[in-house]
Amino acid sequence: MTIGIGLLGLGTVGAGVAAILATPAGRHPLVGELELRRVAVRDLNRPRTVALAAELLSTDPEAVVDDPAVDIVVEVMGGLEPARSLILRAIAAGKPVVTANKAVIARYGEEIAAAAARSGVYVLIEAAVGGGIPIIEPLKQSLGANRIQRVSGIINGTTNYILSRMAAEGAAYSDVLADAQRLGYAEADPAADVQGGDAADKIAILAGLAYGGPVPREAIPTEGIDQLDARDIAYAEQLGYVVKLLAVAQAMPGEQAEQLLDVRVHPTLLPKAHPLAGVNGVNNAILVEGDPVGQVMFYGPGAGAGPTASAVVADILNIAGIRQATGGGGTQAPLDPLLAAGSWRDCRLVESAVTSHRNYLRLRTSDRAGVIGAIGTCFGEAGVSIQSIVQFETQSAGGAEIVVITHEVCEANFRQALAAIEALTDVQAVAACLRTL
Amino acid sequence: MTIGIGLLGLGTVGAGVAAILATPAGRHPLVGELELRRVAVRDLNRPRTVALAAELLSTDPEAVVDDPAVDIVVEVMGGLEPARSLILRAIAAGKPVVTANKAVIARYGEEIAAAAARSGVYVLIEAAVGGGIPIIEPLKQSLGANRIQRVSGIINGTTNYILSRMAAEGAAYSDVLADAQRLGYAEADPAADVQGGDAADKIAILAGLAYGGPVPREAIPTEGIDQLDARDIAYAEQLGYVVKLLAVAQAMPGEQAEQLLDVRVHPTLLPKAHPLAGVNGVNNAILVEGDPVGQVMFYGPGAGAGPTASAVVADILNIAGIRQATGGGGTQAPLDPLLAAGSWRDCRLVESAVTSHRNYLRLRTSDRAGVIGAIGTCFGEAGVSIQSIVQFETQSAGGAEIVVITHEVCEANFRQALAAIEALTDVQAVAACLRTL
Repeated sequence: MTIGIGLLGLGTVGAGVAAILATPAGRHPLVGELELRRVAVRDLNRPRTVALAAELLSTDPEAVVDDPAVDIVVEVMGGLEPARSLILRAIAAGKPVVTANKAVIARYGEEIAAAAARSGVYVLIEAAVGGGIPIIEPLKQSLGANRIQRVSGIINGTTNYILSRMAAEGAAYSDVLADAQRLGYAEADPAADVQGGDAADKIAILAGLAYGGPVPREAIPTEGIDQLDARDIAYAEQLGYVVKLLAVAQAMPGEQAEQLLDVRVHPTLLPKAHPLAGVNGVNNAILVEGDPVGQVMFYGPGAGAGPTASAVVADILNIAGIRQATGGGGTQAPLDPLLAAGSWRDCRLVESAVTSHRNYLRLRTSDRAGVIGAIGTCFGEAGVSIQSIVQFETQSAGGAEIVVITHEVCEANFRQALAAIEALTDVQAVAACLRTL
Repeated sequence: MTIGIGLLGLGTVGAGVAAILATPAGRHPLVGELELRRVAVRDLNRPRTVALAAELLSTDPEAVVDDPAVDIVVEVMGGLEPARSLILRAIAAGKPVVTANKAVIARYGEEIAAAAARSGVYVLIEAAVGGGIPIIEPLKQSLGANRIQRVSGIINGTTNYILSRMAAEGAAYSDVLADAQRLGYAEADPAADVQGGDAADKIAILAGLAYGGPVPREAIPTEGIDQLDARDIAYAEQLGYVVKLLAVAQAMPGEQAEQLLDVRVHPTLLPKAHPLAGVNGVNNAILVEGDPVGQVMFYGPGAGAGPTASAVVADILNIAGIRQATGGGGTQAPLDPLLAAGSWRDCRLVESAVTSHRNYLRLRTSDRAGVIGAIGTCFGEAGVSIQSIVQFETQSAGGAEIVVITHEVCEANFRQALAAIEALTDVQAVAACLRTL
């Protein structure tokens, strides 16, 4: 029984999907039962890397969704609209959807999931996080026995590429960014990547699946790498750490009916022996910690036509597979609750004041005896325990740089200590403040 | 709708499964719909870590399988028999099976799969490879779009623990093994682990899933770590490598109807930057390389009650989930071809003479000028290209140790060179011969 695929978008990922569907030999035999029947493109005449019959192409994405020959709608056009409306249109028509669109899912996931549940169709999103890395389906289908304690990941390839090169070359952020743009690893407008928004979209999605309830995307504290000084990467290196843009979703103690979460995106110092510390270049990795599984990690290419298309086609295959098991189309059949991944509890983000972390702090101070003592006293009076406090040589005359790494402390106490330190006459500036694992 | 679970075995893994089922809060809500109804044990009176009502326990595993209250049979007793017969008995009764038994699946997987297909039930085996790491289901459900080029893994925790300590401490194999046995990381009879048989079971299973056809377990060339000299680990370190017991299944070019494979288990030198090189202690990791996904890696705890039970319960949840989607029990419904993972082509192992690898060779030679030249000539005449040839200092008087690392060469040519080298009067012995990635 051949299954008709309608593709919305024929950019990098869409072309990758079309290429897989056109060459089924050697892949799972179910790939051979998928037939690309309609493709929505913006421009019919643009040259393409994949050869498709002209009659497949259309500039009307709604017509592709509505086409009765299309059984599964694959949205790989990106952007919020018209992607969201087209996804909802497919669902309303009883057609399952596969999408790689993290921005839409992070913002409209609840609306889309509710519509999908009403219509009895699946909306699968493996390609939305981690490119080719299987992470969405393993979270849904392989880790359900666990109480998830923490999901942390390097889930933005552009920033990881930039940070890897800054660390390897001691280069400045702006120089590496410019080079990354030239090489195609960063977009002309890099804001969504370097300011952490893309990673926040993805951790919102991962947290929603790991903890069983939607996470408010806009409430996630997000800090990018665009303010990061190469000096902090160098100091971190000397202290035994690497700096990565980490997205974290951590369970907090609370009542069972509601899952309290500490979700955030920020540059983070990782001990060099940490499983995520060795993830370099455009690779992504997601570490899931749960009881009783312990730590499991998923690693691989976080972007690119081939890897992302692999994830998209995996979702199509899952829908095709369960269609066979449930006897073909029809929206009367109940959904597999693992594959459908409905919400089962409320999740709420806690105020950052009540969260606890280790911190890295770089201070510019006058080069005088007693400064370290005064700083240490500020921490002590706020109840903040220090792991190390180190003075580094600086080129600039008349000043010193002091780097402090704290033990895990409550954010409120840390902020209190920081205010006292900023008020010290010998402290010229808080030059950097990063989290540490 | 509550689903009845019958557990065969209440050892480490069985107790871990019972503990999860007894504490559903905070796990996926489907866990709360699972009810442990019968448990087969060997000794009713043995003290247990998990409290179970006495009437659940039985010393008759067939009665547990046959019990009409048991909907899913979970086999965690281990060993070939009666495990195999009990699995087949459950299948014949139309009951889906979850098993952690790699030995049975590696040897009787074809028989069991055929029976399962006839009865229309699922047999899920996530816990058979990689402990808590999701790898079986991702191979089945998330990578089907790919042509798999290679699956390679560190999939035996005991040997990885021993090798990690040998490398860190420069200790001898026998000393570390004795210590590992004392600490419970190695069994009293360590043969299945240290001679590579356990890893061969697991790569047979992984290869069968990755390439879509059963792999003859007994034909897999298998070499363990029990003959490994700490000296080779030290030399490898100096040359930029770590030594791991690697299980590899690699696709070979050939006709499409039949997939030719090079499958093997042996100690292997990995470049330190290789994704698998940093996997230490009892952790496992599996690297899957495919077109178009590239390299994806799955990492985590390869054994232990909690991680393995996490994988077993994941399989139970998958069966429970698809039961909901297909309207409860009944064996008339067709199976989801991804979850059922039937064979779809023939796989055949190639003769090792036609395979190509990089090699590490340690020779004991007389300490005379011209030896390296003579060795190099033997390689050259056999068409074997050398990457490095290094003489190491030895404590023993009157001799030298020469380590050669070749480029990737055909095994037949390498064997030809080796025979010529062994015939050299200045070569006293081929002290070690390992593969290199």
